[in-house]
Amino acid sequence: MEKILRVNSRTGSWKIEVCDGEIGRLGGRALIAHVLLNEVVPTCDPLGRKNKLIVACGLLGDTPVTTAGRFSLGGKSPLTMGVKEANVGGAAGKALARLGFRAVIVEDAPRSYSPRVLYINRSGVELFEVRDLLRASVSDTCGYLRARFGDQIGILCIGPAGEMGMCAAGIATTDHTGVQIRYAARGGLGALMGSKGIKAMVFDPKDAPNPVFYDSVALNRANKELVRLLMEDPKTENRHNFGTPAVLSLCNELGILPTRNFRSGSFEGALKICGETIAMLIDKRGGDARKGTPCVKGCVIRCSNVFADAAGKEIVASIQYENIALLGSNLGIGDIDKVAELNRLCNEIGLDAIETGAAIGVAMEAGILDFGDAEAAKELLHEVRKGTPLGRIIGNGAAVTGRVFNVRRVPVIKGQGIPAYDPRSLKGIGVTYATSPMGADHTAGNALETASTVDPRSSANQPEVSRRLQLRAAILDSLGVCLFIRPAFVKKPELIAELLNARYGWNWTYKDVRNFAVECLQKEKTFNERAGIIEPADVPEFMREEPLPPYNTVFDVSPDELKRTWVADPPEDVF
Amino acid sequence: MEKILRVNSRTGSWKIEVCDGEIGRLGGRALIAHVLLNEVVPTCDPLGRKNKLIVACGLLGDTPVTTAGRFSLGGKSPLTMGVKEANVGGAAGKALARLGFRAVIVEDAPRSYSPRVLYINRSGVELFEVRDLLRASVSDTCGYLRARFGDQIGILCIGPAGEMGMCAAGIATTDHTGVQIRYAARGGLGALMGSKGIKAMVFDPKDAPNPVFYDSVALNRANKELVRLLMEDPKTENRHNFGTPAVLSLCNELGILPTRNFRSGSFEGALKICGETIAMLIDKRGGDARKGTPCVKGCVIRCSNVFADAAGKEIVASIQYENIALLGSNLGIGDIDKVAELNRLCNEIGLDAIETGAAIGVAMEAGILDFGDAEAAKELLHEVRKGTPLGRIIGNGAAVTGRVFNVRRVPVIKGQGIPAYDPRSLKGIGVTYATSPMGADHTAGNALETASTVDPRSSANQPEVSRRLQLRAAILDSLGVCLFIRPAFVKKPELIAELLNARYGWNWTYKDVRNFAVECLQKEKTFNERAGIIEPADVPEFMREEPLPPYNTVFDVSPDELKRTWVADPPEDVF
Repeated sequence: MEKILRVNSRTGSWKIEVCDGEIGRLGGRALIAHVLLNEVVPTCDPLGRKNKLIVACGLLGDTPVTTAGRFSLGGKSPLTMGVKEANVGGAAGKALARLGFRAVIVEDAPRSYSPRVLYINRSGVELFEVRDLLRASVSDTCGYLRARFGDQIGILCIGPAGEMGMCAAGIATTDHTGVQIRYAARGGLGALMGSKGIKAMVFDPKDAPNPVFYDSVALNRANKELVRLLMEDPKTENRHNFGTPAVLSLCNELGILPTRNFRSGSFEGALKICGETIAMLIDKRGGDARKGTPCVKGCVIRCSNVFADAAGKEIVASIQYENIALLGSNLGIGDIDKVAELNRLCNEIGLDAIETGAAIGVAMEAGILDFGDAEAAKELLHEVRKGTPLGRIIGNGAAVTGRVFNVRRVPVIKGQGIPAYDPRSLKGIGVTYATSPMGADHTAGNALETASTVDPRSSANQPEVSRRLQLRAAILDSLGVCLFIRPAFVKKPELIAELLNARYGWNWTYKDVRNFAVECLQKEKTFNERAGIIEPADVPEFMREEPLPPYNTVFDVSPDELKRTWVADPPEDVF
Repeated sequence: MEKILRVNSRTGSWKIEVCDGEIGRLGGRALIAHVLLNEVVPTCDPLGRKNKLIVACGLLGDTPVTTAGRFSLGGKSPLTMGVKEANVGGAAGKALARLGFRAVIVEDAPRSYSPRVLYINRSGVELFEVRDLLRASVSDTCGYLRARFGDQIGILCIGPAGEMGMCAAGIATTDHTGVQIRYAARGGLGALMGSKGIKAMVFDPKDAPNPVFYDSVALNRANKELVRLLMEDPKTENRHNFGTPAVLSLCNELGILPTRNFRSGSFEGALKICGETIAMLIDKRGGDARKGTPCVKGCVIRCSNVFADAAGKEIVASIQYENIALLGSNLGIGDIDKVAELNRLCNEIGLDAIETGAAIGVAMEAGILDFGDAEAAKELLHEVRKGTPLGRIIGNGAAVTGRVFNVRRVPVIKGQGIPAYDPRSLKGIGVTYATSPMGADHTAGNALETASTVDPRSSANQPEVSRRLQLRAAILDSLGVCLFIRPAFVKKPELIAELLNARYGWNWTYKDVRNFAVECLQKEKTFNERAGIIEPADVPEFMREEPLPPYNTVFDVSPDELKRTWVADPPEDVF
């Protein structure tokens, strides 16, 4: 039986609960929704004593199932003021699961901030201060922790941005090699972790007993089938070769690539920052550069990369599509080395690169710096690191930046910056942004995958498209597997129940899985409504009025259509 | 029949409508609630094209009834994101009413800001740019307009803060002598006016026909009775002699005087900033200094003053209790000359002194400047005027300041700074802050007047106290009379219907007046709910946890009690 660890961040006391009953059937995102709805006052100050930081392994988190090991972080978001779950790969999820914990719930808040490490191993829990880590960069923090505790540990940590309570701060982690810096980026969860006075969590799985599965043979069989289906899907090879940047050219063609604060959906410099160029440069530059590496051990897709400069020295790992779009085309910057450098700075300071790119775009709109001026953007990130007034504005995200600088063209929904898919020419994702409890979050239901079958520029049927994608995302985010596993489940959705039944000895059917997703979303929506979040939200006013080149589209899914997204019964078949 | 003027701030076109039917029975605050609910998308960007700036005369606005002439400004608040009405005295309300307008509704928004003047006289309307007024101070703006259009005009204008869209910006006006600067201060309406590209409105009543009343004799008789009742109330003389600063000593004794960002309810320097000291200094210093002057012609209370320095040179007119508290004790500043200077700067820059004082208090809490450092506070106001990043943070109010600087002790409710009455030791006003659609606004139902009859530190019966006060406020704010008229209506509430019937030939009873107030509040609450505002809100978390010296009270009216404020049927007798 797995466990739940509760840590009081004010007193330092902790206790372990058995993870059974209703919560025993939940993992990842669904577990977070459950804890938030049942334990957190929806109207609370998200950075105050009443919010909780929840770390939750997916239901398959301790299995060797491919891509499993991603895990979820959540709480009431200081950015959206509603429910937030952000998940991430790396080594930490597997380490925590290996220790037998389904979840860690950090409660209360210390009187003032000091950099503390929450260390968890098989013997117990320690919470101690490490003064040297005050305002340390993410890679320095990971380096210190790996040197002190060995390289088998899993790490979660925040950078200076999270320590200073900035709402664009994410929670960073690294992979088992210590090379990748990956983020549970969105929703300002880094600030939430900072508010608990926790600079880092270390999960040390040394000598932890092996997990026991109900039916290992069936689990392996299902995993093998999953891998087979994945490997025969052409998207898998594409992702392996080009990583997420593969979609940049497609987004540019579709006219949804954020360009100069969402003034255009295509960028004249797209060729210089696209996936093919990046892959070519990685091959050419050598040295640290590489592609096709995994973020979690056992992933067969392996879409990560290390991007290096002309001398072969690492700039950032991984460089990903959304970050390139928000820090590149969205800022009018068409130089991939400069974009990578901005991405690296975000990673080190502890910032969500999407939110930060959106905020800098708004600052450019306000005339604080010029579009295309990468040096000025870099300088702005140094301001964030130093915590100057200007830096704190940017570090609090696009909505605050827009409010402070009196900007009307602010690409946010529910307070959160819109990611790298302009909803005016990909209307299904606009429905997701508006109706997902997560706000503007592409991982909550990305309609890009339907763009070849449902006209992305037509408003017809988009609520149905989005609803289905949102339900899928809720399932995957609760299993602890990667969204890129979808093609296999689309072909054989009954595999999900097979995997769960093999792991736990349940008797779930595909219908149970579907109902599980519906319940998860319902809990999230209920929490949001009690928190005063309008459901559904709408896209920013300018996106309904200002035609987006090159297709001159506006977002025209009506508010009534948006409302209908969740009024109708969800489909039986969500994959 | 009165008229409503609609001005399109994008095209400059305007039209005049007859003010009849349902809207013909509304004035001031009630008219604003009606227009917002019926015409404005509740979820709109408050500084975008869909919000409206509403200027509304009270129902008695064109009469010689004492204190009448106050008028209301409103719209969706960029600070609270909900309904907002702020009213103010001065000469402009009477001038607008004299022109026969019940209301001016400014719609749409220009593409970009330029300083324009909306000039209204009996012949029509003009909207024109005056480049010289760009970023002009409030007194320079009033001076320019009085020089250009004569000294019989009424003026509404914004300072640089409103031009820059800062959400602590108010709308300023002056009296018929041009000496007083008075504010429709709260809710960021100055930013709303700025968003319409209107630096100033000028109401020129020259040659306007006299208003026609249904029964002038009855109106005069009712007014005479009103004056008699007012003059026999001891509060009237006290207000005349000491103005609003009269209550500072009382608030200090009650332990509700905001001190050092609401850390205490009493201030060791209270004696140096209280009403008695101010009155003594005014008498002693002479020169420009004076007290007992009116803000609207015909007021028999005349509670305004001109506060001058030791040389008799005016610093600020008027100096008022709430501003002294927020810019004085709340900042740990016990020097009335320095407080007056801060107040003057707020007035000139176009800032709500309450919101600004609350924001500076939060900045002091964050360590940006020290409590008690008046020079640093002054410097901060210069930053606001210049529009630096730091200045823009402060100029956007206490909530934004708290978010940017990661402060938990942020005295705001519904995004608006708490005024000069700490709710922990005056619990009735805490109920008002939480349950009024206006958020933390002392004019929405100030329980100070009940402090001698209902234990202010007990949570018992406070919802009933607040509800009654809120209904009264809604009536007075819709008539266009001053809150200080209350003692007369408490003694003889039927006077209200008498006044309205004499003015309009209606057949209202006291019950109709009461229902009018209930409807007004209901409309406001409905708008807020549609805008996603939690009703009721709650006080900030620290006010439920941190005991307030000297009585060590916390705010303990339960959320359920707060909810009950508006669930039960309002009383028949609201005065």
